[in-house]
Amino acid sequence: YIDRNLDRFIEDLKLLCRQPSVSAQNKGIDECVSVLEKLMENAGIDVKIFEVKDGNPIVFGELKNKNAKECLGFYNHYDVQPPEPLEKWDSPPFKPEIREGKLYARGVSDNKGNIVARLEAVKAYMDVYGEVPVNLKFFVEGEEEIGSPHLEPFVRENMELLGADGYIWEGDGVDSEGRPVVSLGAKGILYVEFKAKGPKTDVHSSRAPLVPNPAWRLVWMLSTFKGPDEKIKIPGWYDEVVPPSEKDLQLLREAPFDEEADKRELGLKEYLLGLTGVESQKALRFSPTCNICGFSAGYTGPGSKTVLPAEASVKVDFRLVEAQKPDLLFERLKDHLKRNGFGDITVTRHGGYEPARTSADDPFAIRVIKTAEKVYGLKPVVWPTMAGTSPIYVVKNMMGIPVASAGGVGYPGALVHAPNENIRIKDYSNSIKYVAALIHSYRENP
Amino acid sequence: YIDRNLDRFIEDLKLLCRQPSVSAQNKGIDECVSVLEKLMENAGIDVKIFEVKDGNPIVFGELKNKNAKECLGFYNHYDVQPPEPLEKWDSPPFKPEIREGKLYARGVSDNKGNIVARLEAVKAYMDVYGEVPVNLKFFVEGEEEIGSPHLEPFVRENMELLGADGYIWEGDGVDSEGRPVVSLGAKGILYVEFKAKGPKTDVHSSRAPLVPNPAWRLVWMLSTFKGPDEKIKIPGWYDEVVPPSEKDLQLLREAPFDEEADKRELGLKEYLLGLTGVESQKALRFSPTCNICGFSAGYTGPGSKTVLPAEASVKVDFRLVEAQKPDLLFERLKDHLKRNGFGDITVTRHGGYEPARTSADDPFAIRVIKTAEKVYGLKPVVWPTMAGTSPIYVVKNMMGIPVASAGGVGYPGALVHAPNENIRIKDYSNSIKYVAALIHSYRENP
Repeated sequence: YIDRNLDRFIEDLKLLCRQPSVSAQNKGIDECVSVLEKLMENAGIDVKIFEVKDGNPIVFGELKNKNAKECLGFYNHYDVQPPEPLEKWDSPPFKPEIREGKLYARGVSDNKGNIVARLEAVKAYMDVYGEVPVNLKFFVEGEEEIGSPHLEPFVRENMELLGADGYIWEGDGVDSEGRPVVSLGAKGILYVEFKAKGPKTDVHSSRAPLVPNPAWRLVWMLSTFKGPDEKIKIPGWYDEVVPPSEKDLQLLREAPFDEEADKRELGLKEYLLGLTGVESQKALRFSPTCNICGFSAGYTGPGSKTVLPAEASVKVDFRLVEAQKPDLLFERLKDHLKRNGFGDITVTRHGGYEPARTSADDPFAIRVIKTAEKVYGLKPVVWPTMAGTSPIYVVKNMMGIPVASAGGVGYPGALVHAPNENIRIKDYSNSIKYVAALIHSYRENP
Repeated sequence: YIDRNLDRFIEDLKLLCRQPSVSAQNKGIDECVSVLEKLMENAGIDVKIFEVKDGNPIVFGELKNKNAKECLGFYNHYDVQPPEPLEKWDSPPFKPEIREGKLYARGVSDNKGNIVARLEAVKAYMDVYGEVPVNLKFFVEGEEEIGSPHLEPFVRENMELLGADGYIWEGDGVDSEGRPVVSLGAKGILYVEFKAKGPKTDVHSSRAPLVPNPAWRLVWMLSTFKGPDEKIKIPGWYDEVVPPSEKDLQLLREAPFDEEADKRELGLKEYLLGLTGVESQKALRFSPTCNICGFSAGYTGPGSKTVLPAEASVKVDFRLVEAQKPDLLFERLKDHLKRNGFGDITVTRHGGYEPARTSADDPFAIRVIKTAEKVYGLKPVVWPTMAGTSPIYVVKNMMGIPVASAGGVGYPGALVHAPNENIRIKDYSNSIKYVAALIHSYRENP
């Protein structure tokens, strides 16, 4: 059925991709909500739009079967990254185009392809079976690409509405060998910007013996955060860290990973600290990080200019692992600065997520993994957590609902956030089949 | 005589100021050399133009009196800083204009005012006395504003031609109270740029546990250079340093300095390390420095972006004090990097000067100071060295000739290197008188 109706399913996806919805530029948001609402209604879903003060609307949809005991939720976002640089696109970012089995458009992989695949799966299932064996909820926000600033309060106020027995998250798909990828969590994040001030204006650097240099202030501050051994030195930073379980480590050992290809792509002879094999995956997925995203001070043009800058700033992202809390760590960071004589430095926090993970032994995780093996015919690659972040905690930690990413439309060449973002039609079709099969699993095993 | 002919002297200065000569932009250099040549010939000076391979010509002039035993040299430069930003000028930078007793033009203070004042003094002296009581040499280069890259080899090859018993350097003038300022030296400098490389391209910061971050490499490197106590930690950095003599300290104690006004202007509550009084002047003029001029890495725009940058660079200027050598220190710096595991960092040197100082007890210095007191009628402010740098070492260290800055056209409001650069006509007139008096001092005291 899905194969036979694929053309119709692709048209629906094109419809959503044709509508710009760039949250960072506040472009096309309301129009995109309307398109999405229609697509959901066409799939037989009851839709409710929640306006968000100073933010983008949240779209919530429900499809009930009063005989079903369980409820399956889907988290997605309808906003996309800015399409720039436009000149690097081979076809316009908001004019979806199929070439050589791939559909090109901004947001087609992240994350409109997943939204529509899930809706089409529901439509297909209803057409074939007349009803779904599990209650379904669709939770679609419009600010994921700008850090989901209004997500946490919305969830706090709507816990009952959003409640379910398991949530499928946006993202994932297949790896380079076509194996389905399942991710059971994400790191948290704390993003902080530090600003130091020196003299009122840039001054001639001959004044250096008398005038404090803000770039030096930041260098000395940063060197109290982390040394070349990569251990974070801020007191208490590791206090809450939960190390990976034996099961987690087993998953890392089982997951195939082409280390040499990865290093080649990065242009590295070896990983940091000489890590290899499962140790490198353990570090990647279970180590808290303290990363300098940007440092700016003084004259950075060609040649030499002798100046003592008036201001310097550095942006740092700290990725957090189970069960670190961004609020608590931010307080420890500020204490650390005060205690070490850096009270003059201005600290600005840009958002933050808690880390969140679902156990691979959780019945929902088992269902998700089994379904993947059935649909794709290959043993799934199960990551106990991603190295990146996603606001999974609002579902997993705040509502206590297990969460997994699986059966998405992604593949390694999707160019997410970059020009020529694309998905492969075959992955889109598999994604629809995966979601239909997952729904069906509740009929076989309610 | 000088007062009577001032209008004519101002016309000559305007002539030179009207000619752009921006070494950094390679603008108007040859034309400026021609104008300068004519002005010097008009003063009765024999001129010789030295072409410099891949550089700007050096103008050399001589006025001999075969009966005179001594020789007085003048170092100046005919090139100027770029005039930009043009919109901040109240009158065009290369159309000299007099307003309220001040002459406005790019380069009028640094350093065309001094060149022409010195030529007019010679002309005036010749008109009045018919001959000068001392041989005169004029050494005018055209690359001072870009670091004098060809000066050292030129001097090495022309030591006999340039030889003299004392050199008056460009610069200086009067302080805020009208006291004449005499400077007897300058710090040296070593300017170095450091570049660290990470992955081939910027990557997502979730890769931080495996991918070396070049910004962190530079932070860790810098923190081995200097800590918050401002002491430079590179081994051997202070080995050659000659501390100020008792005479030097006495000059610092005698020199008037408005510390509170200076701090107000800088927007500082106090100087670095809480220094005050003569201790602050001692630090300013006799401490080697290690100053971050610029630091650049990753994303520095508004808000947050999680990126691990491919490259980071930092520019550092080290000011050097007597008798530190830039070549030797650069070797020590590179050794230090190697020994501390920073061999991956690319090090680029942008020029360098040795420090150079003339003793206040030197007969030439005494002559210069005495003449200043006579002409200005106030006790001169004598600085044993400037806090900044100037290529004085080519004369003082390479040729062993005493050097002093004195009787220049500068004053604290001159806006050197900035828009609306200007001099006061009264300072110009005094500068001409000073040079004439200095020449005359060889008649009274040959």
